[in-house]
Amino acid sequence: RKEIAGVGGLETLSLDTAQVWAALRQQRDRFASRPEKAARALAGEFLLEGPARFREPGVLEITLGDDVQIVRAGVVVIATGSRPVLPGWLAAVAERTVTTDQLFELPVLPKRVGVLGLGAIGLEMGLALSRLGVEVIGADVANTVAGIVDPVIGERAVARFMREITLWLGREVSVSTSGDEVLMRSGDRVVSVDLLLAALGRRPNVDSLNLEAAGIEVDGRGMPKFDPATMQIGDLPVFIAGDANGDRPLMHEAADEGAIAGYNAARSEITRFRRKVALGIAFSDPDVAGVGARLDQLDPQSIVIGSAGGDGNGRARILGGEDSLLHVYADARDGKLLGAAMVATGGEHIAHLLAWAIQRGETAQSLLQLPFYHPVVEELLQTALQGIAEKFPDGLPSGLARTATGADT
Amino acid sequence: RKEIAGVGGLETLSLDTAQVWAALRQQRDRFASRPEKAARALAGEFLLEGPARFREPGVLEITLGDDVQIVRAGVVVIATGSRPVLPGWLAAVAERTVTTDQLFELPVLPKRVGVLGLGAIGLEMGLALSRLGVEVIGADVANTVAGIVDPVIGERAVARFMREITLWLGREVSVSTSGDEVLMRSGDRVVSVDLLLAALGRRPNVDSLNLEAAGIEVDGRGMPKFDPATMQIGDLPVFIAGDANGDRPLMHEAADEGAIAGYNAARSEITRFRRKVALGIAFSDPDVAGVGARLDQLDPQSIVIGSAGGDGNGRARILGGEDSLLHVYADARDGKLLGAAMVATGGEHIAHLLAWAIQRGETAQSLLQLPFYHPVVEELLQTALQGIAEKFPDGLPSGLARTATGADT
Repeated sequence: RKEIAGVGGLETLSLDTAQVWAALRQQRDRFASRPEKAARALAGEFLLEGPARFREPGVLEITLGDDVQIVRAGVVVIATGSRPVLPGWLAAVAERTVTTDQLFELPVLPKRVGVLGLGAIGLEMGLALSRLGVEVIGADVANTVAGIVDPVIGERAVARFMREITLWLGREVSVSTSGDEVLMRSGDRVVSVDLLLAALGRRPNVDSLNLEAAGIEVDGRGMPKFDPATMQIGDLPVFIAGDANGDRPLMHEAADEGAIAGYNAARSEITRFRRKVALGIAFSDPDVAGVGARLDQLDPQSIVIGSAGGDGNGRARILGGEDSLLHVYADARDGKLLGAAMVATGGEHIAHLLAWAIQRGETAQSLLQLPFYHPVVEELLQTALQGIAEKFPDGLPSGLARTATGADT
Repeated sequence: RKEIAGVGGLETLSLDTAQVWAALRQQRDRFASRPEKAARALAGEFLLEGPARFREPGVLEITLGDDVQIVRAGVVVIATGSRPVLPGWLAAVAERTVTTDQLFELPVLPKRVGVLGLGAIGLEMGLALSRLGVEVIGADVANTVAGIVDPVIGERAVARFMREITLWLGREVSVSTSGDEVLMRSGDRVVSVDLLLAALGRRPNVDSLNLEAAGIEVDGRGMPKFDPATMQIGDLPVFIAGDANGDRPLMHEAADEGAIAGYNAARSEITRFRRKVALGIAFSDPDVAGVGARLDQLDPQSIVIGSAGGDGNGRARILGGEDSLLHVYADARDGKLLGAAMVATGGEHIAHLLAWAIQRGETAQSLLQLPFYHPVVEELLQTALQGIAEKFPDGLPSGLARTATGADT
């Protein structure tokens, strides 16, 4: 247990995980029920609730209990979501494997859990379980967590999260049962766990839609091609939005996609919409976040990287975030902001500022002219920007600009 | 004590306030020593450390122990800071009164503290003491806390903080001693406290500088007039920066002022600098924050107010911030953002986004085209902006804009 100066009695704190778990489930249901109710109310009598598939272009079969209803639709919007991937090699341990859909339905938490896949969801869940007292072993074939591409940020994140969960990275993992145990193996390492959490990604729910019957071409993975500015599939009167299209599987992007698809589906003319700057956050506390261009999408010779660590940020230190690390990528010619990666306490807030700045075409120098309060985690960004801006000296003090002639503010 | 679902043993938690207090003091000293060391290193042999006053224009007397050293200076920068105000009516209880300078030197915390003045500092300190188990009675002649001007935000903040400290607002308070007790009185109310914390504002340290001898005109409060774009006093070779000038007594503004004053002091030509959009935050958790124009600086007829409450924000609810409240003020003609006030969990982050947006001349509509992740407290801002943007319908879905012709992003 962590010690806190001056606080006694920490050693007798106890956790009734069943009760915590029930409270969490209740909270989840409260959050989820609101949009569901709203959607049902909006759909009203037009809601047909059942599996759907194309029979031919513009014709859908909906299975409603024992009946099949035929719907002729001038326009179709596919928004069927996704489901967790459960690869074949998990079949042998299926009874001891849950996905995040099932995890929350467990009545009690197991003692030791193996997390397969350490993307954003696997990392978030693994850490949450660990913080509830579960021993967690996380494995990923990638050599990083939460999809971090920047190797320095990745290394920092791995070092940070290893303090809470065992990480097996960069190697295939295999699983098997042995009596009542589930064994996880990776290289020479083997461990027995009570339960496996499969967090190996999500698969768009388009495979049972019979897309071919609608004249929709699909690629090798069964996915249709669509235009992210219109959500339209080819020139067809068919649109695809949200997790179903396999692109940007994030709530705020899905909301935009639904709005774009709906707008275009209801009109004879197709409108092209601007999509937002990429913003991805894993709520791993410290947050892992990526904004704009990833490091592997940039030419190392043509960028400068501004860096800032939590040990130099007063607020981060107060919050126990000394090992926070932020990298900001900027164009080496003019300081224009291109992207960022971070593992940082309060990183989600820094990530919003950066996403907005990148979408607005700001440079490190221009951004420093905006206010940064003190003491705040946002000063991490200020420090990183100063590292970039010093390569573009204008002879003025950092963060200050001359007034426009005759104007004071 | 607060109950947390599933957590046992909370009732036996204990707090050794002396130990907490010592740890806090250590942390403070660590933070303060770094800039102090840096400043001393930079000043080197040029540092004369003692009270200074003008003898005549360009001539300073510095008292160094028993000596007085005369310094002839072509240019002078006044950066003498401020000190807590201790009005005469506190003289009778002086021995039982501390300022925030002295508070941290107390070896142990008293049982009951009266906080006089509930600006940002009084509120922050009162809440911090209360959270350390001290019973706190806070009083202010104003009918609000932390300088909140917007009456709806003020009411929400008062209701929130009353749950932790007793608030006596909108009336003069008087104090007296009675035996070993200190009595606080306001109207019919009277309470006995062990200690008074005076948080009645800070006074610029310019009264002992003999400014008149330097040919500096001062107003009725003894303050010189200066230009916030140059920090220069009149046309004199004298600059005044930081708390000493009584304007924008905030760290980030003081840093700009020091840089501006130093830049101009070292050059023959005076440069005018743009100052940043106003940003003030009280770290009262929930934060109280004000950005840009205050409500009383705006014409109620020519603005629209966008509003959002924590009960409608999933993340705020998870964080216990249901009673957060945000008001955003925008120009009624075009939705241009003018200012904001809030009491909100994570309000400091929302305040940064708003300050940047206001300085950049964004409208509610344009800001909604930038990404808001989910679930984050930043969505409070999104909700408030939507309330403004719906008054300026453009026929497109909220937060979406057409691509520029031929461009996709």
